[in-house]
Parts: sequence; C-alpha cells; structure tokens
Amino acid sequence: MASIETIRHSLAHILAAAVQELFPETRFGIGPAIENGFYYDFDLSAIASGEGKPKSLSPQDLLKIEKKMKEIIEKNITFKKKFVSKAEAKKIFEKQPYKLELIEELKGGKISIYESGRFIDLCREPHIKSTKEIPLASFKLTKIAGAYWRGNEKNPMLQRVYGIAFKNNKELENYLLKEVESEKRDHRILGQRLELFMFDEEVGAGLPLWLPKGAVLRHIIESYLYKELTSQGYLWLVTPHIAKLNLWKTSGHWNLYRENMYSPIKIDEEEYLLKPMNCPFHVKIYNSKIRSYKNLPLLFSELGTVYRYEKSGVLHGLTRVRGFTQDDAHIICESSQLTNELTKLLKSGLKILKTFGFKDYDIYLSTRPKKYAGTLDGWKKATNSLKYVLESLKLKYQTDHGGGVFYGPKIDIKIKDSLDRLWQCTTIQVDFNLPERFKMTYINKKGKKQQPTMIHRALLGSIERFIGILIEHYAGNLPLWLAPVQVWIIPVGSSHKKYADQIAKEFQTLDFRFQVKDENETISKKIREGELQKIPYLLVVGDKEMKTKSVRVRERKKGDIGMIKLDKFLKKIKIEIEKKKYA
Amino acid sequence: MASIETIRHSLAHILAAAVQELFPETRFGIGPAIENGFYYDFDLSAIASGEGKPKSLSPQDLLKIEKKMKEIIEKNITFKKKFVSKAEAKKIFEKQPYKLELIEELKGGKISIYESGRFIDLCREPHIKSTKEIPLASFKLTKIAGAYWRGNEKNPMLQRVYGIAFKNNKELENYLLKEVESEKRDHRILGQRLELFMFDEEVGAGLPLWLPKGAVLRHIIESYLYKELTSQGYLWLVTPHIAKLNLWKTSGHWNLYRENMYSPIKIDEEEYLLKPMNCPFHVKIYNSKIRSYKNLPLLFSELGTVYRYEKSGVLHGLTRVRGFTQDDAHIICESSQLTNELTKLLKSGLKILKTFGFKDYDIYLSTRPKKYAGTLDGWKKATNSLKYVLESLKLKYQTDHGGGVFYGPKIDIKIKDSLDRLWQCTTIQVDFNLPERFKMTYINKKGKKQQPTMIHRALLGSIERFIGILIEHYAGNLPLWLAPVQVWIIPVGSSHKKYADQIAKEFQTLDFRFQVKDENETISKKIREGELQKIPYLLVVGDKEMKTKSVRVRERKKGDIGMIKLDKFLKKIKIEIEKKKYA
Repeated sequence: MASIETIRHSLAHILAAAVQELFPETRFGIGPAIENGFYYDFDLSAIASGEGKPKSLSPQDLLKIEKKMKEIIEKNITFKKKFVSKAEAKKIFEKQPYKLELIEELKGGKISIYESGRFIDLCREPHIKSTKEIPLASFKLTKIAGAYWRGNEKNPMLQRVYGIAFKNNKELENYLLKEVESEKRDHRILGQRLELFMFDEEVGAGLPLWLPKGAVLRHIIESYLYKELTSQGYLWLVTPHIAKLNLWKTSGHWNLYRENMYSPIKIDEEEYLLKPMNCPFHVKIYNSKIRSYKNLPLLFSELGTVYRYEKSGVLHGLTRVRGFTQDDAHIICESSQLTNELTKLLKSGLKILKTFGFKDYDIYLSTRPKKYAGTLDGWKKATNSLKYVLESLKLKYQTDHGGGVFYGPKIDIKIKDSLDRLWQCTTIQVDFNLPERFKMTYINKKGKKQQPTMIHRALLGSIERFIGILIEHYAGNLPLWLAPVQVWIIPVGSSHKKYADQIAKEFQTLDFRFQVKDENETISKKIREGELQKIPYLLVVGDKEMKTKSVRVRERKKGDIGMIKLDKFLKKIKIEIEKKKYA
Repeated sequence: MASIETIRHSLAHILAAAVQELFPETRFGIGPAIENGFYYDFDLSAIASGEGKPKSLSPQDLLKIEKKMKEIIEKNITFKKKFVSKAEAKKIFEKQPYKLELIEELKGGKISIYESGRFIDLCREPHIKSTKEIPLASFKLTKIAGAYWRGNEKNPMLQRVYGIAFKNNKELENYLLKEVESEKRDHRILGQRLELFMFDEEVGAGLPLWLPKGAVLRHIIESYLYKELTSQGYLWLVTPHIAKLNLWKTSGHWNLYRENMYSPIKIDEEEYLLKPMNCPFHVKIYNSKIRSYKNLPLLFSELGTVYRYEKSGVLHGLTRVRGFTQDDAHIICESSQLTNELTKLLKSGLKILKTFGFKDYDIYLSTRPKKYAGTLDGWKKATNSLKYVLESLKLKYQTDHGGGVFYGPKIDIKIKDSLDRLWQCTTIQVDFNLPERFKMTYINKKGKKQQPTMIHRALLGSIERFIGILIEHYAGNLPLWLAPVQVWIIPVGSSHKKYADQIAKEFQTLDFRFQVKDENETISKKIREGELQKIPYLLVVGDKEMKTKSVRVRERKKGDIGMIKLDKFLKKIKIEIEKKKYA
C-alpha cells in the first residue's frame, strides 16, 4: 500500500490530468503533496471565458474537475516512470512554458517523467502504481486561490486548485468535521461577534484595535502575569517603542533582522527604528550600573509592544499581526545558575499554560546551527543544561538538530488546543550574542569582571496571538476568570429592577464583572442574546427569587440549573474564579 | 515706586552698561525683563580671550560684572528717554550691528532711546527714573548661557547673562532658598538616585527607560486609574502606536499638527505615522458599529503611549519628553448630556488629583479663538456648559479669552506643588472637529441620525510627567501607597534571619512591597542606605523583637518610633495604604 504522501502526490497528477481533459489549452505549473492534501497550479490564460476575459475557475468547475478525476481513477490507470534526455523532455513539453523553464534548470543528463494515461509530468518522486490504489471517496477538491508562479510577484498569477486526501473516507469525514468546528471557532469571526477586537483599513492591516471587552481580557491576562511573575522575583521594566538605528546596529538586528523591521524615522537628523525586540533596552538597563554576583540572577520582565514586518498576505487575525505585545523576559545569571534558572522557567511556564487551560504540548530542543555566535564550549554546556532540565523534569521532547538560532540553543513549546492543533507559544533561548555585543559584565566572587549568561524567554509569546488561540481553544466560551463579562442580571419586570441593582452592588463589592440587562425587551430575547455572547451565567430574577434572596441561574452550555440562594451562588463563582476553573 | 518689572528691565540696561565698561568692544543684542529677573545678550567675539579665541564669560566675570553694576547703581544715574530720527539712531549705534538690524525694521519716524550714564539703548518701554530706586542687595547675576541672535540657529551665537531681581533682599533670599529646595527635589537627580528611570544616549533623548522601581510606581498609578475609572463606567481600549498617514489626514492632524509629528514609516508602499494622539483610533472604534442614544454617554479610556516631537533643547527629565503615556479619555454623548458629563469629569478629576496629594490648583477656561471649527451656536453652548459647571461646583477660575484650541473650548487645571509651583495637568476639551471630520453619528430618540458631542480629557496628562511632578512634590518621599518599596526588614544578626523571613511571608500575603536586607553589612549602614533610598519604614529585628513578635520601627523623616507589635504595625500600614494617606 502506498503512503498517504504518495497518494496525495499522485492525486495532484490526476487533478492535472483532469484539467487537461477539460481545458486542453491549460499550461501547467507544479503540483506537490502538502499537509492533508495536494494542489496544482494552472495557467488558464489561453482559455477564453466567453466574456472576453481568460477563464477563471469557479466552484462549479471544481465539481466538474473532481468528477473527471474520479472517472480517471476508475479507469485504473498506471503511473509509468521514464527517463528521457533534456532534448526529448523539451520536445515533450514544447507547449508548456513553465515546464520548459524547469527543464532548463535541471542538471544531469537524464530527466525523469511520469506518464499516467494521456497526462505526462516532470517528476522525480515516487507515485502509486495504479489509480486503483486510491479509494474514490477519500479525497475532495476544496478551494481555488491565486498564486504567483514560483511565489514571485513579478511572475504571472496562476490558479491554484487545492484538494484534501486521506487514507479512507472516514478520515476524510473526520477532517471535514474538524474543519467545520475550526470555522465555528475562528477567532476572527468570534472576535467580531463577541466584540473583542477589530481591524480598520484606514489604520492599517495587522494592527488590531482592542474593543472594551477585548481590553478587559488583555487586562486580566496582563494582571495575572504581573502578579504571578512578581511573586517569582521578576523585576518589571517599561521601555520606549523607538530607539536610534545605531542601537540596532550594536545589537546586530540591523544586520540580521532588517527584513522584519520597518523603515527609519528621522528625528533631528538621526534615524530611529520602531522596536522589533525589547532585548537591547533590557541590556541597556543592565549596563546602567555595576552588577555583582550578589545581585544575580536578575529577572527582567516587560509586556513590551513590538512591531515586526509581515507580508500582508500572511497576516491572519490576531495570530499573525504587525504589532504585538510580548510577555518578554531576560534572565541574566552566572553560568553556574543556568540549570536552576531553566528549571524554574520551564516549571513556571508549564504551570502558567495549564492555568490558561493548555495541558498538552509538544516540546522541541533546537541545537547549534552551522553559523553561530559564542564558543563551542558555551554551546555544549548550554545545550546540555537544556537537555538536563527537560530530562530531569521528565518532559518528552524532540530534538531539532542544527535548528537553533545563531545566538544560542533553545527550547520551544507548542501547545495543543482542544482540536489537537499545535500553536507555537513558549520559547526559552540562551543568548551568547548580546552579552558579547553590549559588553555585559558583572563582578564575580573573585572580584573580577566576567560576562554573564543571558536567557530570553516568552511564555505566552504574544498577548495578541495567545488571545487568538484562547478564543479558538474555548470556541469563545472563556473560563469565568477570563470572561470579560461574567454575569448578566436580568430582572423579569420593572418591579424587580431594585433587587437586580442590589445584586449588582454585591457583585461590584466582590469585583465581579457584570451587567444589569434592564432594557425593554423580552426575557427570552435577552437569554438568547446572552447565550450568543457566551456570557457564563445569566441570572433571571423575578418575584420568587426576590422573596427568597435567590437567583434563577442559566449556566453557559448547560442551560437552566435552577434557583440558587444568592449567597450560595456568590460563593460558587468566587471559588470558580479563584481556582481558575473551566466549568 | 517703580514696578518690579520696570526695575528688572532697568537692571538689564545696567547690566549692559557694566559690560560696556568692562569690555568696550562688546556688541549688544537685546535685554528684556523676564519672570523673576532679566537677561541681556552680548556678542564678545571682538574681544580676545588671550588664548587666541574670543572672550567667553566665566562665573568670575559674572562677579566682576555684578560689582560693576552696583558701582553704577550707587552713582544714582538717571534714565533719560529721548526721541531721535532713524538717521540719528543709525549714527548713535553705528558700531552696533544688532541694534542697526533692529533700527532697520522699525516703522515710524521717531525712535525712542534711553540714556543711562554712558550707556545708550534702543528702548520703548518705561524705566526707573534713577538707579537709586534699586535696592543694592535685591538682585543677583545667576548664569551664562548661549543664545542665537533672535532665536534663529542660522544667526551668530551670543552670550546671555541671566539675573534675578526682587523688591527687596528678603524676597531675593526667599527665592534663592526655594531654588536650593527645588534642586534638592529635582526629579532628574532623584529619579537616578532612587533608581526609578534612566535615559540612554544610544536609545535617544526624551525617551525614558523605566527601571524596576519606576515600573512598579507606574503600575501602581495605572492600576489605581484602571480600578477607579472602571467603577465610574469607563470602557477601556487599546490601540496601535502607528496608523496610516491617511488617517491623520482625515483627522486633520497632518495639516494642523505636523510639526509635532515624526517622519513617516513606509510599509508596503504606504506611509504610516507614529501616533501623537489616541483620538482617531477611539473615533474609529466608535464608528465601528451603529450607536444609539440608549448607549450614550460612552466613556472610552486608554493609557495610550504617544510620540510627539519636541526640540532637543527643551527636553527636561520626565516633564518634557518625546514619548509619553496619556491617561486619555473621550466622552461621546448627546449635547443635552454635556453639562452632566462635564460635572462628573471635573469632580472625578479633582478627587483623583487630591488622592495623589494635590489639593491646590489654578483653573483656566479658554474660549473661542479667531480661527475655529464648529458653529458659533455650538461654541456658545459648550462654553456656557463649561462655565456653568465651574460655577455650580463653586470653583474659582480665570478666563483666557480666545485662548481655546481651534476645535473647541476647554478647561485646564494647573496643580500647585509643595513649593507653590504650577504644573499643567488636567485638560477637558470639547471637540467640534473630529465628530464632523469622521462623520460620527448616533440614532437619536426620534430615530434620526445625529452628530454626537465629544469631550477629550486627560486627568494626569501624562504618566511620565505626572511622576516627575510627584517626585518633586514629595521630594522623593512618596506616600506609602505609591512607594515602590514600602518596607525594609533588617535582621540584626544571622539568628534573626528566620524571624525576618516570617515577617516577609506575612507581608507577601498582604501584598505589601518589601525587601529583607540580610546582606553582611552593619545595621547603621543599612539604615543610612534605607534613609537615602527614602524607604517609608525600616524594621530592625533582633532578640527582643523576636521574643515579643514585634518590630523596631524607623519611620521615614521621623526616625526611631519605638518597638511595635507586628500585628499592630501591619494594621497601621494597611490603613495608611488603604486611605492613601501621606504620613
């Protein structure tokens, strides 16, 4: 049985074969297997659409192509690999300019091609032997998108047809169900519906504006981090969003990170840059006085908003933006303290992720790449420290050999959300570069100047991105401690308004986040609206509740859970908030 | 008796006369009276210093000049006003190029000059009749500074000699004492000594970096504002630091405020600007959905960091910076709600200022300037609202006729610090401009679209500046609730360390900010250091304290206040913090 990758790749050929049968004038780009499926790029500019414009594929076309693919598959066509000379290849593909471009670049005498029925493609990779290996109901064409030939904006725009393919129909159906679930959880849609954040064309792409409820959510997360990290001995810093270009030359960012930085701002004939990182500022603060081994480790932390260039095409809601707030920290210590600091970091990081509801993750250790700063000995020691810590905490991890950044080895944590999707969050990186570039020193026990060891780390990564993940993980049903509005109090009639206000007063004293919904609308409409807004608790109060000092409770996702004494309800939610439970 | 302004102006002439006697080749600029004194600008480039360079005035020269001024005054020289023709004036000042430049620009036939002894000056304003009107011990030359002729960088740099002058010696002495006190309170020096913030040449002028203790102070202030304003119904927003240039065109800032804005950043062929204001973002959020009269007033608030150009020469510690965080808010309401909203704003603003220790202030009402946005009727109503509110709250105020900004009338509050210095803080401004430019609307009771009324307001103004003022107001002795470190626990010997840690644990539970000072140093050294760092309470614990569960308390500025049971001390400071008292 062929691997699923081989099947996906072969399906790309069959897709092209189907398009060739339907639109013989098509010029073909390339068609690889990708995660969960495959695609093929087509140039249909030689095909008239009937409106004087070239043919543009429609969803109806996808159905036709898919039908044609199934016909081809049912013919049990075999895939035959052949080797031809460059000249022969050029002859075979004489009407295919994209293929000719590829052939021109191929080295070596023999070129491998695959024949499947009437369709021939340039290809080196293995294919299925016959189309009968493909279960008919295991794949599906999903969408059409524009894609520049070879990803270059200067080249023609081709039409890319995407498909998904799995081992069998059951896996395909599972995947499609998850897709539907993902769409329901899409933080861009929920963010708008729950009024958490917005984007505005006139402000700029990738620059979120936080609406009141989103700002409350940010505040809750930031306050939690402030309290948690302060109790762990972190010292907070606040640094500017711009600094002279020269600082970024000293730090090395101007040389190595320039493509992610924005163009300079001129102030008094000097150039300044928006910060893509907080590190150089923290180093400046470290260097502002003489440090002694007695003061180490120093744990500097900042919720620092940084700006990094991303192409407009890859921007995606909150998870890929141009400005975001890092929960950034730099631990500066003696090399002998490294293991202990890394242990604390990992423990604290995993505890914090768990508090937010993420209990599963994949951990990666990335080691020295070919180009590196620092000494071989330093790399060895630091990498061993990272390994030792992972192993002593009994954490499973994968090693990405040579995958470290140039300045030091690192541990990355990808959290798994409720749909088992992985999201890069935490990163813990040893840095040999900045201590050297900024000549950081401390006075060691012997009274001599020595270079300290420096760790960068971000736990959530970016507040924006993390909120995006939270929304998708919980499908917008944020745990009570995170919910911007925790409770709605709904008086049945105007005579119950006073009682509702009394309850509100108690909530206020206890710092709960609530709204009294006394608008002139029906109770059922308010309940529907509250459910749409994913309010954790809706409290309806009428005569009976007023008489017994109770509230009728509708719990999110559970519905009516009955009448509860107000005291008891307050106690219940107080515990739920304090324990940061997810009901 | 001549007014003090007349005396100060005459002293400028006498200063010039003295310089003329000492350095006859001097070319004279101008010499006006200023706040607390006077100055005169001199060009000494024709006078050799003996080192081949032109003469540069030294502090010794100031003493010599002051002595000479007193000699002139003792001669009882009279000031004589004369009128001469332009030609005569040119003859008199033939060796004085700066005066000639001024004469050239004078309109009208007759030019007034003043003769006092051998010194003649161009001058229109009144002078004393005779130098005997000046008490000898009532003035003093204070400093020398460079100043471009007519403030233009392209002109020659002149030497400016400053003097101070008062009605009598007692007033002069008082002023000098206050100056000494001001210097002791200089937030730039205290900020460094107390490790609150720093500046760095490589980061850039006017861009503060907040050190751990300063960041704690910011956090306390910001958390207080968050809690206070949330309870008042404010909704929080968070908006980006950059936006497309076009947004600033729509808002009008690009036209009217450009000189305070930084040069554009290019992203994907579009220009973006660092934000000098948060307003357009708040308006965008307002405009992101249909608003109804039922939702008004809307109180949008943001702690937004803005960047505004200031010339490097005027930058001053935290009180004049290039990037700062506004405690910004926009109240959007129906015009009928204006008076009520203004009343709430003023009350809340004064309450908050009082909490920080500012009970005295000067209030200014600024009315319509010649160039204005909006309608005459709108201005009248809004100005009347502002007046009405000031009067109904029985607040004394001064009217700055025509001193409003173009977009609407405003109330400014200048707070008075402990040295009676005034600092501009709060501003409350009605805005007729942005609602028009951004086409803001709401659906009124009649179901029709209507333009809302908008108020900008900042209470503290800028967190940075306000912290600068706080430091100077309290001479660094911040009240307990604001002190970044509230308590030091100092164990007498190693055997008391455990008890110190026990106390620390209790402090931690109560969220107090403390440090255990168990370094290997003498108690007296630690106490001296704690006093220098202005720590509110130093708790020394030895055998006696351990036995009786007490602490020996040294209170800031009071010294040893005796042994106090720990429970009692905790209660004492808990109340002090909660009540935000200043001990």
